[in-house]
Amino acid sequence: MRSLQRPLPSARGAVCPRRPVHRMVSCSAAARPIARATDQQKLELLKRVECFIFDCDGVIWLGDKVIDGVPETLDMLRGMGKRVFFVTNNSTKSRAGYMAKFQSLGLNVQAEEIYSSSYAAAAYLESINFDKKVYVVGEAGILEELQLKGIHHLGGPADADKRVTLRSGEFMEHDAEVGAVVVGFDRHINYYKIQYATLCIRENPGCLFIATNRDAVTHLTDAQEWAGNGSMVGAIAGSTKREPTVVGKPSDFMLRNICARLGLRPQQICMVGDRLDTDIMFGKNGGLNTALVLSGVTTEEVLNSPGNTVVPDLVLPKLPDLLSVREAAVVAA
Amino acid sequence: MRSLQRPLPSARGAVCPRRPVHRMVSCSAAARPIARATDQQKLELLKRVECFIFDCDGVIWLGDKVIDGVPETLDMLRGMGKRVFFVTNNSTKSRAGYMAKFQSLGLNVQAEEIYSSSYAAAAYLESINFDKKVYVVGEAGILEELQLKGIHHLGGPADADKRVTLRSGEFMEHDAEVGAVVVGFDRHINYYKIQYATLCIRENPGCLFIATNRDAVTHLTDAQEWAGNGSMVGAIAGSTKREPTVVGKPSDFMLRNICARLGLRPQQICMVGDRLDTDIMFGKNGGLNTALVLSGVTTEEVLNSPGNTVVPDLVLPKLPDLLSVREAAVVAA
Repeated sequence: MRSLQRPLPSARGAVCPRRPVHRMVSCSAAARPIARATDQQKLELLKRVECFIFDCDGVIWLGDKVIDGVPETLDMLRGMGKRVFFVTNNSTKSRAGYMAKFQSLGLNVQAEEIYSSSYAAAAYLESINFDKKVYVVGEAGILEELQLKGIHHLGGPADADKRVTLRSGEFMEHDAEVGAVVVGFDRHINYYKIQYATLCIRENPGCLFIATNRDAVTHLTDAQEWAGNGSMVGAIAGSTKREPTVVGKPSDFMLRNICARLGLRPQQICMVGDRLDTDIMFGKNGGLNTALVLSGVTTEEVLNSPGNTVVPDLVLPKLPDLLSVREAAVVAA
Repeated sequence: MRSLQRPLPSARGAVCPRRPVHRMVSCSAAARPIARATDQQKLELLKRVECFIFDCDGVIWLGDKVIDGVPETLDMLRGMGKRVFFVTNNSTKSRAGYMAKFQSLGLNVQAEEIYSSSYAAAAYLESINFDKKVYVVGEAGILEELQLKGIHHLGGPADADKRVTLRSGEFMEHDAEVGAVVVGFDRHINYYKIQYATLCIRENPGCLFIATNRDAVTHLTDAQEWAGNGSMVGAIAGSTKREPTVVGKPSDFMLRNICARLGLRPQQICMVGDRLDTDIMFGKNGGLNTALVLSGVTTEEVLNSPGNTVVPDLVLPKLPDLLSVREAAVVAA
């Protein structure tokens, strides 16, 4: 398939047609209702795209259940030589930690195919040749990824039970060799960690402030939405008056990192997600192809509502709908 | 003294004179160096001002030591019929709680003369006839002030040791009758409190989000600066994507509240502080008279530096310098 790749006219910047014919175009004035992808559109996408980036919840699985047909779809894509990445802003686990979840769901995935924001933090530090220590507000995933990159770190779960009494004369020491604070979701956030991170950022010259993401809420249990890493980042931003460098979605670091590693251009990548305002917007901002699946939070009604200005290149009821072109795609490849 | 009050030409909005003659004017192009107040200027201030609002640290005390002459100065002002307020953004204590600190320093102060941000939160809720429950992220001071106003509350220190495990299916209940979340400094901030506050603000229709202040750092011990309530507020703002109503400095609620209670206009009030960018700016934004004391963080060099555009109406080496006009002031009163 890679050898068959040929230049295709880009729809980006093109005049928006009155009705989409062969593929959906990224245009806020797209005709409504926005049609589901035809087999022709699916085949064209498979021809021009070398790498798929998948949001997981609502795309690969729903809660603790894999969406029917997803394993076969992934097999088809891999069989065509496509690269796949599974992206999550959840930083509590490392890529190896996520492997367990994928395997428990019966999904055959390599650790290298998982792109967690915990990994993004370590990859970012590696990309700038960082050689100091990292103070972590966050959970085990970040520490494990830093460890794999050989980056010295402190904080994280080890500081979960530390308390600050604020007795008269109390002074908190901090390590002057900390050159970056990485902030990820931390269910054990406490004042000790907040103060330690604040001291590093305010007092260590040039200390970086890195956030895995700033998501307001996260789905840590199926039962309800939980305050996300926006809280932990907000706490450190509030005491330092500094804005962080975000390495997870919707920043473009992950995208640049993937492009650099695989030697691809954004036009050769497709972002597949179930959220218009995060996944699809992230893809469009980065110049990627975008595919919205309707198996997650976005309904066709929301997609076609007058208030929605985010139009994906392709709309699929669910990811396994790509299987309708399996035979044709394999022949083409 | 009250009966002697007479209209004085206001310098606000006036053309900035080349050199100030009788009083410092609020003008960024004021002649430099900015002179210390003359006795004539002090007397004029005492004539036109009915109420003094004092920042405490650097004005009334330094660390744990009262500045020499402050008790006598306060006696003089009270003897002239002036009202005095001691303002602090620290919400950890109630006004009654602060009484202990004042008394331990030998200062004779009434609880009603203390305006802590814990009190400001309760006074704000009272001013809008709030009749629901309050969830508190913060310490005892806020709860005590809410109690005095008869406002139902939950959270605060009672939630200090609560933990969230995020086990599969975990769901946190919250009280649907909470109509406001008040966030003050909390050394026992934890994820339980963050999530509870987030649920109230996100899920209870019309729920208010009130911050005692957003100070980045605070001086809870003399030994170093500590992450301030900016952290706690940032945590809740980060998960709710809501901006709080701030009731402490530098918001104008306290000022409006004092004016309403005493029936005064801003021009009859003087803000006395040691910080140009907070105290003096706060006073100027509110249309108050402003007096900078040089006994705290601001030096005459900083005051007169080309980069400083905040010019107080009056500059005093320290508050007790007002005593130089004691006899004349008492005669005039």
